Amino acid sequence: MKIDFNTAADILKSCGSAYILTHQSPDGDCIGSGTALYYILRGMGKKARVLCSDEIPKKFDFMRREYTDEEFEPEIIIAADVADAKLLGRYNEIYGDKVDLCIDHHISNTGYAKNTLVCPDASAACEVVYELMKVMGIAADEKLAKCIYTGIATDTGCFRYENTTARAHEIAAELKKTVKVNFAKINREMFDVKSRGRLKMEAFAVDRIEYYLEGKCTLLAVTSKMREEMEVTPAELDGIEGIPLQVEGAEVGITIKQRDETSYKISMRSANDVNVSDICAMLGGGGHVKAAGCLLHGTLDEVKEQIVDAVKKGIEVCTTE
Amino acid sequence: MKIDFNTAADILKSCGSAYILTHQSPDGDCIGSGTALYYILRGMGKKARVLCSDEIPKKFDFMRREYTDEEFEPEIIIAADVADAKLLGRYNEIYGDKVDLCIDHHISNTGYAKNTLVCPDASAACEVVYELMKVMGIAADEKLAKCIYTGIATDTGCFRYENTTARAHEIAAELKKTVKVNFAKINREMFDVKSRGRLKMEAFAVDRIEYYLEGKCTLLAVTSKMREEMEVTPAELDGIEGIPLQVEGAEVGITIKQRDETSYKISMRSANDVNVSDICAMLGGGGHVKAAGCLLHGTLDEVKEQIVDAVKKGIEVCTTE
Repeated sequence: MKIDFNTAADILKSCGSAYILTHQSPDGDCIGSGTALYYILRGMGKKARVLCSDEIPKKFDFMRREYTDEEFEPEIIIAADVADAKLLGRYNEIYGDKVDLCIDHHISNTGYAKNTLVCPDASAACEVVYELMKVMGIAADEKLAKCIYTGIATDTGCFRYENTTARAHEIAAELKKTVKVNFAKINREMFDVKSRGRLKMEAFAVDRIEYYLEGKCTLLAVTSKMREEMEVTPAELDGIEGIPLQVEGAEVGITIKQRDETSYKISMRSANDVNVSDICAMLGGGGHVKAAGCLLHGTLDEVKEQIVDAVKKGIEVCTTE
Repeated sequence: MKIDFNTAADILKSCGSAYILTHQSPDGDCIGSGTALYYILRGMGKKARVLCSDEIPKKFDFMRREYTDEEFEPEIIIAADVADAKLLGRYNEIYGDKVDLCIDHHISNTGYAKNTLVCPDASAACEVVYELMKVMGIAADEKLAKCIYTGIATDTGCFRYENTTARAHEIAAELKKTVKVNFAKINREMFDVKSRGRLKMEAFAVDRIEYYLEGKCTLLAVTSKMREEMEVTPAELDGIEGIPLQVEGAEVGITIKQRDETSYKISMRSANDVNVSDICAMLGGGGHVKAAGCLLHGTLDEVKEQIVDAVKKGIEVCTTE
């Protein structure tokens, strides 16, 4: 059942204790919103605990300085920033059908929880939690401000992406006016700092970008052999799909990842108006207008040729429209 | 003479025509604020022209779509985002002592103009121009919004740096609420897109980072020979000083650039609490707490040894304080 802010506030106020679940592969927004809810409940004298299927990366520790983990029998189960029970990972089996309150911003939320407070226009779950705090009359202190800001900043690429709402900026302004936090330091740690392996991977990738269609199509092929040479963890390969599109003039950025001897997973990103969902559909795949994918078979050269042909058609459609 | 917003508004209203000067090596804020002032004056039926000592990079063309260049005899001279007449470049000689109105946000503004509207708390000159628009009752349309947003975004690293004010966020929120502009596209072009040469340079640099003091000190040496190998333009080397500090765990990031056979220009950046101004002072240089520099002589190995010794002392001072 979809609920409003007042009902969500009532649920939080009337519970005695809660487990707060975040999604697997945790990011700044689920840890930010989950930890903010933890502080809100603790501030009201209730027991609370944050659970995540995967280990929470160390870079989020600064939000959790005042967090203490303790086991107890929870009265209610809350999910923060979790669009689908499947994303609870190993906690899906235990709690997937027992979530009492879900606080989220994904339009794709499946409604798996008994009560769902979802704001699809919000840039981040943390934006929803902040509005909930307003309704509950809770002012942001330093630890809450760190959580809320981090969730909004990480989900919007530091206010860069299309999902950045006016409200996201307003909340950042309100936090900066009322709470003394080194927001620039948070941004540095979230956006600028990279592991040595990650930096090496990016350098390796940039060196291997291929240019097609007068530079409008950029392509990066990562073979199994290259992956071995790079010596990077799978996490460090995360986001490699964004690299080909960084090149000036690129309209379509493609990443080819070898799966086995003769099959390749293709990720396609569009910078502006080219519809990569249509292009991937030509190749038997699909996705969104600006980010899509497909699976192709053959030698690497055959796969590249197929892709570049399809992209050429896709760009032609776009310019004649 | 320092003036307030009303006096600045009166000057704009009462002039018949103006040349608007920006600083050399133009960036998003001087082009944004200069072009916004151009549109403001044109909107009041006055003649206006933007002048910059250097060529304006193509990536700023989107702000200048409705700009038409014409020569005329200006009644007044305006400077936008120019802290010192010297920064006018080749226009200093002609107009340096003839600037009637300077609109700026640098605390270091030398007061070279007859009338100076300077707001040192503003994150960008565009923030000052926006407040001036408010005082003059001018609403932001699409072209003004692009200019104002771009200046604020570029000067704050897209709301990342310490100079990002609450007001900067508020202005972004106001623009997003009232004007239909693809701000994400602006951000992509300002922050994500890089030339092939630039990407190659970054990859080259990352591959050559050296680690000292358990990774707390990262160092990148760019010799004359390496610069030749990289085949990059001086503009593409711009900002290379930020690269060593991107590595996780780095407290002090150093860039060494060879000047001639035996002399090296050192740039030092601090991530957190280490005072690099003090460290560079030990080496005969100076600067700011978080960004400083010096000039050293000797072989590259001697220079590196000197630097790492000084950084070691600087880090020790910091941890014992």
